[in-house]
Amino acid sequence: MNSEFDLIRRYFTRPIHRAVLGIGDDAALIACDPGMDLAISTDTLVADRHFFTDTDPGKLGHKALAVNLSDMAAMGATPRWVTLALTLPVDRIQSQPDWLEAFMRGFFSLANAYQVELIGGDTTRGPLNIGVQIIGEVAKGKALRRSTALPGDDIWVSGQLGDAAMALAHLQRRIELDPAELAACLPALLTPTARVELGQQLIDLARSAIDISDGLLADLGHILECSHTAATVYLAKIPCSTVVKKHMATALAVDCLLAGGDDYELCFTAPESKRVEIMQLAQQLAIPLSCIGEITEGEGLRVLDSNGNALTYEKKGYDHFLT
Amino acid sequence: MNSEFDLIRRYFTRPIHRAVLGIGDDAALIACDPGMDLAISTDTLVADRHFFTDTDPGKLGHKALAVNLSDMAAMGATPRWVTLALTLPVDRIQSQPDWLEAFMRGFFSLANAYQVELIGGDTTRGPLNIGVQIIGEVAKGKALRRSTALPGDDIWVSGQLGDAAMALAHLQRRIELDPAELAACLPALLTPTARVELGQQLIDLARSAIDISDGLLADLGHILECSHTAATVYLAKIPCSTVVKKHMATALAVDCLLAGGDDYELCFTAPESKRVEIMQLAQQLAIPLSCIGEITEGEGLRVLDSNGNALTYEKKGYDHFLT
Repeated sequence: MNSEFDLIRRYFTRPIHRAVLGIGDDAALIACDPGMDLAISTDTLVADRHFFTDTDPGKLGHKALAVNLSDMAAMGATPRWVTLALTLPVDRIQSQPDWLEAFMRGFFSLANAYQVELIGGDTTRGPLNIGVQIIGEVAKGKALRRSTALPGDDIWVSGQLGDAAMALAHLQRRIELDPAELAACLPALLTPTARVELGQQLIDLARSAIDISDGLLADLGHILECSHTAATVYLAKIPCSTVVKKHMATALAVDCLLAGGDDYELCFTAPESKRVEIMQLAQQLAIPLSCIGEITEGEGLRVLDSNGNALTYEKKGYDHFLT
Repeated sequence: MNSEFDLIRRYFTRPIHRAVLGIGDDAALIACDPGMDLAISTDTLVADRHFFTDTDPGKLGHKALAVNLSDMAAMGATPRWVTLALTLPVDRIQSQPDWLEAFMRGFFSLANAYQVELIGGDTTRGPLNIGVQIIGEVAKGKALRRSTALPGDDIWVSGQLGDAAMALAHLQRRIELDPAELAACLPALLTPTARVELGQQLIDLARSAIDISDGLLADLGHILECSHTAATVYLAKIPCSTVVKKHMATALAVDCLLAGGDDYELCFTAPESKRVEIMQLAQQLAIPLSCIGEITEGEGLRVLDSNGNALTYEKKGYDHFLT
């Protein structure tokens, strides 16, 4: 059987270019660029909570990094370095020796695409738990925050919402999608794309930003709370796939769209004066950007249907301790 | 029941002084000091693996941070910021509402003592898993590494080794300590002290350093491997408590001393010319520093008993995947 250090050498250690010192000492070392702030975040995936234990390990490796890249995107930061704290059941190593290799292949494939370096970590035995810590760079004072939305700002969303939650609902037998619909929705759940470049390009356009991991209402709600503002959102303007559209008569699809979570799209606010530049950016990056409402004075988040009636809505999003 | 965000507000959010932005956004922000390198490390504690599930939560909070401070100490870095990725069983929150409060009290009490700021984290539901990520500062190019020991260096160890392992052996009923012995050994296991100030003071004295978390032989072994050197260590010179000394006739006590782990003392190498300064430092910090052997050419680690005979020794230390 492999020792912890064999595992580290074999699966985790790769050449380091940007860090001063990578894996193999008591800590990694990175040099500071005085023109930059560092953005630091951590996100954990727990078996049976964030993923099914039989999830394809390569896709899981991708997703574990993607959800952290998404936090960098939401700050407008360029992701640079990650550490990985992996708690692994022994049987996962013993009876499925390829599991870790496939997991790390998925992880490194995405890391390489963004030139993100794995500079450290920890491997322990226990119930499967995947902790990623990410560090990015952003020009000093320029990071996109949640607390800086202003009344009058447009509210924008990237991509389409709800697909990941629809796929999850199907896997949990809460809805039945046909095979083509499932195939269309599954990638959003299994291999989400973090909007890293979009976040960077929004630095001088957006006033505030967050990534949508817990659902639109919950995450936009964080912007409102942190910015001490309110918002009106138009249901019909929220971008979604034809699959979500087709099921929109069901409460579940509306739920997936507004509160499903796992979207990893960006929700940001920007002054009206930036509309043209934002539309140009959408074209340039080939990422749909939709204006779904506006920030207002006061507090609360109103969602209006196509008749202008406010939806009454209890569940705001995914909460790890309430759901 | 508390929501995730109630938990964060109540237990995790404290005023931030040194970071640009703390808990509450997609990432924390820290400013870079161009004269510094940043040291980054992560260490996870898993229930039933690194601690008994009924361990006093305040002590556990202390230890979760202490083992990470110890990594900073081993680099000579000043710990500055931490993030905390906490996976909690729901019953721990529901039936033991004071658990998290006590845990965080232990955590913050140690953090405050070192002026370390909690700037982010993640709270999820699942089998108890405590992931801490730590970031420290160290003068550019000055960090203590494992790879820089040279033949002729003295090998030093701080404090005393083996007490934590003796206490664990007692709790696991592999040895029976009398109450006074247990009381003497338990603090090393439950509330270890990281040698943070010692690490910083060793920057211009030591040639290489590591913290002893997996046992002396394993961790000194890492220095030898990384530095492509060998070593001779004298068993009688390895510092230990009267409890370990009393039991030294048993294989278990020798095991605890050489390979027990959980010591969180520093093992470092330094040229002979630094002996006086190191002894002065020991006095100044009131921390015992013992010279236990020397680095030699070649490879391998010899432990000599008081008759000059080499111990044959199979188990080198704690390995999360072999033990």
